[in-house]
Amino acid sequence: MAEIKDQENDAVIIDQLYRALSEDDLHGARVLLVQMHPSEIADAMESLPGKARSSIWSLLSPDVEGDVLSELQVPVRMELLEQMRPFKVAQVTKNLDADDVADILQELPKDMKDTVLLAMDEQNRQRLRSILSYPEDTAGGLMNIDIVSVRADVTLDVVMRYLRLLRQLPEQTDSLMVVDRENKYIGVLALTDILSKDPEATVGEVMTAKTGIPALTPAIDVARIFEQRDLLSAAVVNEDNMLLGRITVDDVVDVIQEEAEHTVRSMAGLGIDDMFAPVITSARRRAIWLGINLVTAFLAAWVIGQFEETIQQLVALAVLMPIVAGMGGIAGNQTLTIAVRGIALGQIGRSNARALLFKELAVGFLNGLVWSLIVMLIVVFWFDDWPLGIIIGLAMIVNLIIAALAGAVIPLGLKRFGIDPAIAGGVLLTTVTDVVGFTTFLGLATLFLLS
Amino acid sequence: MAEIKDQENDAVIIDQLYRALSEDDLHGARVLLVQMHPSEIADAMESLPGKARSSIWSLLSPDVEGDVLSELQVPVRMELLEQMRPFKVAQVTKNLDADDVADILQELPKDMKDTVLLAMDEQNRQRLRSILSYPEDTAGGLMNIDIVSVRADVTLDVVMRYLRLLRQLPEQTDSLMVVDRENKYIGVLALTDILSKDPEATVGEVMTAKTGIPALTPAIDVARIFEQRDLLSAAVVNEDNMLLGRITVDDVVDVIQEEAEHTVRSMAGLGIDDMFAPVITSARRRAIWLGINLVTAFLAAWVIGQFEETIQQLVALAVLMPIVAGMGGIAGNQTLTIAVRGIALGQIGRSNARALLFKELAVGFLNGLVWSLIVMLIVVFWFDDWPLGIIIGLAMIVNLIIAALAGAVIPLGLKRFGIDPAIAGGVLLTTVTDVVGFTTFLGLATLFLLS
Repeated sequence: MAEIKDQENDAVIIDQLYRALSEDDLHGARVLLVQMHPSEIADAMESLPGKARSSIWSLLSPDVEGDVLSELQVPVRMELLEQMRPFKVAQVTKNLDADDVADILQELPKDMKDTVLLAMDEQNRQRLRSILSYPEDTAGGLMNIDIVSVRADVTLDVVMRYLRLLRQLPEQTDSLMVVDRENKYIGVLALTDILSKDPEATVGEVMTAKTGIPALTPAIDVARIFEQRDLLSAAVVNEDNMLLGRITVDDVVDVIQEEAEHTVRSMAGLGIDDMFAPVITSARRRAIWLGINLVTAFLAAWVIGQFEETIQQLVALAVLMPIVAGMGGIAGNQTLTIAVRGIALGQIGRSNARALLFKELAVGFLNGLVWSLIVMLIVVFWFDDWPLGIIIGLAMIVNLIIAALAGAVIPLGLKRFGIDPAIAGGVLLTTVTDVVGFTTFLGLATLFLLS
Repeated sequence: MAEIKDQENDAVIIDQLYRALSEDDLHGARVLLVQMHPSEIADAMESLPGKARSSIWSLLSPDVEGDVLSELQVPVRMELLEQMRPFKVAQVTKNLDADDVADILQELPKDMKDTVLLAMDEQNRQRLRSILSYPEDTAGGLMNIDIVSVRADVTLDVVMRYLRLLRQLPEQTDSLMVVDRENKYIGVLALTDILSKDPEATVGEVMTAKTGIPALTPAIDVARIFEQRDLLSAAVVNEDNMLLGRITVDDVVDVIQEEAEHTVRSMAGLGIDDMFAPVITSARRRAIWLGINLVTAFLAAWVIGQFEETIQQLVALAVLMPIVAGMGGIAGNQTLTIAVRGIALGQIGRSNARALLFKELAVGFLNGLVWSLIVMLIVVFWFDDWPLGIIIGLAMIVNLIIAALAGAVIPLGLKRFGIDPAIAGGVLLTTVTDVVGFTTFLGLATLFLLS
């Protein structure tokens, strides 16, 4: 199996696989699948329509089913799980890491989860119960429990003899956990130190003292800690500082990826929609967003409706009004995106929130000035009407400043009320920029242009 | 130093720091800074306005300056570098990993880069030159050159004695690189295997055979490989398969974070804007996007202008037309986001592109049907005008289908021409949904409603 392939190759393999499946060439498809890494198979399934997904799943050899399942995005995985019997789920997930099995089980309905647990052997069930007792998006939900721990008072030589007895260390082990007599966590012993320091030194002399991550720490904060400290793994502890498990960087990479993906999707009103969800499912998921935006659109329409007489007298207003509202929306969205990401990354507190607001207002004022001048000149040139040009210029500068204000204040306000600003921010902002844009432009026109 | 803190705490520390700085309490600020990790200091600098940034920088102790510099986002770092002399840059970066120094130097103008290189000692200069010879966003640009390599024919026992002679292994070492006599890369020897396998076994028996990542592989593909294979590190090789260096997962985490961030920012027209860039800089960076959107807006205005007479006769059209255009924009943006992310993640090839298009068209048709019916009913109820309701319903269903088509076709087309769909996709899409929305609605009205 080639380790290295670029994106283009991925797409080519997916193409070949899709072609084999559409031509009912099951042998050809199986030959391709055998050459693929489970994560590539998962990628391919995500990139193909529902029918191809089930065909691929049915062609897989039993020993990769578990890995593929654990690599799939949640909605695609759910699709498969809904069609599987509990016994099959237990069988497929048997050889996975406990944290990956927990991820999968966490999405099942309670009764099915219990049945799957019962179908497992005692040891696996115990391990899983301890992870499942924590919410999925916390350190406890992310952790794995296959840890190797040592005491501080033994020598490195003893540690090495102990490791050799184990014959095999868990995957992704870069360090051992050091605990005291009561299994309380006190620090880590890096494998690099075991190998390069004096074998007669004790663990306590060589180890690095550390505090563990409390099991209820949100996953997103865990990701930030890993990112800031360039960690490969970290210990998870309970409220009494007892060692529960460890988190490895591969799980954290998934959290980081999902978190950024979450902003992109939320801001577009996509939720957890996947590329090839059934048409009905996709349509329904996106319909909510369209519905909410429709309310905004009718509100804007109602505002315009208040100025029907003005428009009747000067139709140029109808021609130009989308410019005022639209430019406000674009500028506001720039500020909103900055603020939403700042909040998601935990970079906005009380003091700099005000500084951010002032900065965005200044940017809004400056760009408002520049673009309202340009728009004014174009309108004067187009309609040969100075008063109309001045009115649209004024309306634009007002709307761009209000857009900057709204772009900064809305997400901060939503956050204070515990609402995800990535989801609700965009609609609220558009409502503000539409209503303010239409009101100022048509209002100023009513006041100054009509005889 | 507390290892564990949550986002709220980050914001609190930034608040305290900002307050100390605004009150000119330099001692208090320094006390806070000493307790912070370099990455937290970098975070704080990114979250505060320019003046506070320089104050923090001047208060740092020399031994953390390099780490802080390497953790800063590019635009903020550039701000600092522009004010530093080459000698100072050489001094500050002396103790950093070579790949981090290369990252920093890559952003400097050529003559300054050369001066900094000259100010370094011979060994560092050699190491840096080899990294700098590769573009920043390739495997070669990401790699580090502090590698420990071993031959396949020695025993683990010999390896262990060799490691003990080194006294210290490079940070983030999870495995040694195995090479043949000509320094050609043949695989990895995991530290876990050195510690748990029979010391008399040879490296060749225990190692895992692997192919290296070619130095010119794009960074984004490197990230995908790490993510799919859950790697902690990987070897980088030249075209002759000679071992050049290694990439560690911490650098890959940065690539993943930046890549997702790139989509969010590009789609909002923010480019590399940072939260507290000077007002003028921010305004200028965002102005380009506003300018491009203005062209779109005037194009839409021109379309509306073609129907001035129609609007004059029926002002309700002006009231309702933003609904048709706006809903098309929202629906199209949902499809666009799905396609842009699919392309960025390398999940869209020739075969599934067509499947995606059909799926999106079906979703567009379905949602078009549902929402045009609802809008029709609201309009009939509001204006008591059945023909007007039917016209807006028809226009909406057309626009939502065209929006789905454009949302899928535009990014795929842009990609074929080598243009980043995240940047240009949104404007093009809005142009299409505005023009189609206004044309169908006002056009149908002209044909069927006017007497």
